[in-house]
Amino acid sequence: MRELFHEQLDGLFDDLATMAGLARHSVGQATTALLEGDVAVAEDVISGDREIDLLREVVEEKAFSLLSLQAPVAGDLRVVVAALRMVAEIERMGDLAVHVAKIARLRVPEIAVPESVRPTLKRMATVATTMTARVQDVIAHRDASAAADLVLIDDEMDQLRRDTFSAMLQEDWPHGIEAAVDLALLGRYYERIADHAVSVANRVVFVVTGEQPVSAR
Amino acid sequence: MRELFHEQLDGLFDDLATMAGLARHSVGQATTALLEGDVAVAEDVISGDREIDLLREVVEEKAFSLLSLQAPVAGDLRVVVAALRMVAEIERMGDLAVHVAKIARLRVPEIAVPESVRPTLKRMATVATTMTARVQDVIAHRDASAAADLVLIDDEMDQLRRDTFSAMLQEDWPHGIEAAVDLALLGRYYERIADHAVSVANRVVFVVTGEQPVSAR
Repeated sequence: MRELFHEQLDGLFDDLATMAGLARHSVGQATTALLEGDVAVAEDVISGDREIDLLREVVEEKAFSLLSLQAPVAGDLRVVVAALRMVAEIERMGDLAVHVAKIARLRVPEIAVPESVRPTLKRMATVATTMTARVQDVIAHRDASAAADLVLIDDEMDQLRRDTFSAMLQEDWPHGIEAAVDLALLGRYYERIADHAVSVANRVVFVVTGEQPVSAR
Repeated sequence: MRELFHEQLDGLFDDLATMAGLARHSVGQATTALLEGDVAVAEDVISGDREIDLLREVVEEKAFSLLSLQAPVAGDLRVVVAALRMVAEIERMGDLAVHVAKIARLRVPEIAVPESVRPTLKRMATVATTMTARVQDVIAHRDASAAADLVLIDDEMDQLRRDTFSAMLQEDWPHGIEAAVDLALLGRYYERIADHAVSVANRVVFVVTGEQPVSAR
């Protein structure tokens, strides 16, 4: 019974890692759509989100069936409950990539992000993609140590977001209101992707070590 | 055993209703802080969020203990799992009220929202507060019918958000970049509060009727 439980649990985590991989792909593609003004890529991200949503349903049903049939307690129960929270957060990362893709699509044939702030935006996207890839590794290998430096990368995201505000609020911002509003919202979306990455990684650490990471307290 | 389960479940839902009440209060207070530029009220919202966070921990521990000791199956299990998702969403509504309060605090002694768009912003806040109050009722009375019209109210939120974009993107927007960026983010925060309200209400409907509301499919 216990062996079956752990096999099923491994299956659950495999699905979560696959979802994180899909979310990483979406974030990367949404950024391409955004920085190249590519409407076809944007459409791919938007329609592709359905795959993440479906996998969420699969994971939820598996977790539900695990709880129902195995009635786990103590540590085993905490792992399944953690998986239920993680699946919601990873799905949300996919939704946020869709929001980025929609801004890209809205501005085609223009590019939403003015050239002067593209390096900052690009770096935000790289940080978000790196964090999502790290989350995938952390889930796949239950590697608590790999989760630790996600918080450091997240600090860079906060700094990048402040950089975008500084750029917009300089007196000589020449790109108008629409570009500023787009940039503020895009910054928010990437920041939330990073937040979810940290949160999911923290849950894995909790599951592996039984202790809340200091940063999550 | 079953009776005890249902007593404990009622306790869980009472706590969720209390949390929704606190979230509603925070959204209302954050709006007051925002529209009156009142830093003391903003600080109250920010520090008061701790209470919602603590209640979240209480609900999670109660749900965990219910799962562990009663090992519910089928419908009973679905209710507890739904409660775990609802608690995360209600906590998030509180966080979003804190984001509104922080923008208010950042602009004191100025008021972040220009006078011309204050009626729209005020209406967004009213819609968000009404939706949160409705969620509290829906949870407290497990009233599926009261959840149904939340979707209609949410449509008004979407329209209000479009109104703010129209106002900002008119050629004669005289309030500059900072006010536009604040307004875009504030609109996003109120919209997300509304999204969570609809989502929590839908979960209650699912718990009560066993069917997904059409709007949530």
